Amino acid sequence: MITDDDRRFLDLAIEQARIGWEEGGIPIGAALVHEGEVLAVGRNRRVQLGSAIRHGETDCIENAGRLPAKVYRASTLYTTLSPCFMCAGTSVLYDIPRIVVGENVSFQASEEWLRSRGVVVDVVDDPTCRELMVTMMHEKPELWAEDIGEEA
Amino acid sequence: MITDDDRRFLDLAIEQARIGWEEGGIPIGAALVHEGEVLAVGRNRRVQLGSAIRHGETDCIENAGRLPAKVYRASTLYTTLSPCFMCAGTSVLYDIPRIVVGENVSFQASEEWLRSRGVVVDVVDDPTCRELMVTMMHEKPELWAEDIGEEA
Repeated sequence: MITDDDRRFLDLAIEQARIGWEEGGIPIGAALVHEGEVLAVGRNRRVQLGSAIRHGETDCIENAGRLPAKVYRASTLYTTLSPCFMCAGTSVLYDIPRIVVGENVSFQASEEWLRSRGVVVDVVDDPTCRELMVTMMHEKPELWAEDIGEEA
Repeated sequence: MITDDDRRFLDLAIEQARIGWEEGGIPIGAALVHEGEVLAVGRNRRVQLGSAIRHGETDCIENAGRLPAKVYRASTLYTTLSPCFMCAGTSVLYDIPRIVVGENVSFQASEEWLRSRGVVVDVVDDPTCRELMVTMMHEKPELWAEDIGEEA
């Protein structure tokens, strides 16, 4: 179930996605929230940092810094796009119990696996998240292929 | 099967683990090798960079920079310790077909999942890799717990 707070935190992730797109990057953003407090936001920075591991979710988790296990275990990860296996695996490493996904039409790989491991995955199907992805996939298909390890 | 070349590339990962330990960090290292050429090495840099996502394998993949899918798909990842789900997920994202693991006694989480996805996982059971981990887990148990998302 998506609450008003969820909507507000997803909007922070969307803001990050927009900033990333304006920077010339891939428009995917994330936010990590612990008991109502925003610990960090992040965005895909493949282009900006020349990075192979800074997806929206991993950039966000990196920006949150070193945290004890109990904090992750009481947090929710918000992401504009359904997580790839790197980001899903990072969530599983840290036992993040819930992920709120902006949309999973443009990309979906890990949701079944996450649910099989007990993670709650709530999908919003947000039109703004989809528009950002559609625009990017149309304008920069090779960049998108690179980001998800596909042949261009 | 472990070849002489595998042994040589694993030794590069072990060298990284030793450097990490001497820096005050967690002694886990990795190397990414494409058709006999070392693309990058890396090591866990949680302590050194205050990082939640720089495990040995992810640090190595980050150090390799942005690569086209076809390079990952013809590469082998060497790591001194059996990969956590973040690092396993990163390998799956990029379709790295083979992982050579120094040891899986100190930690093992993802091998069954990796194999179920078609990844070849070859375990060396190297005593030096184990010694490095045993020493660290004895001297810095709280740091190790943090690194794998466990309660200290």
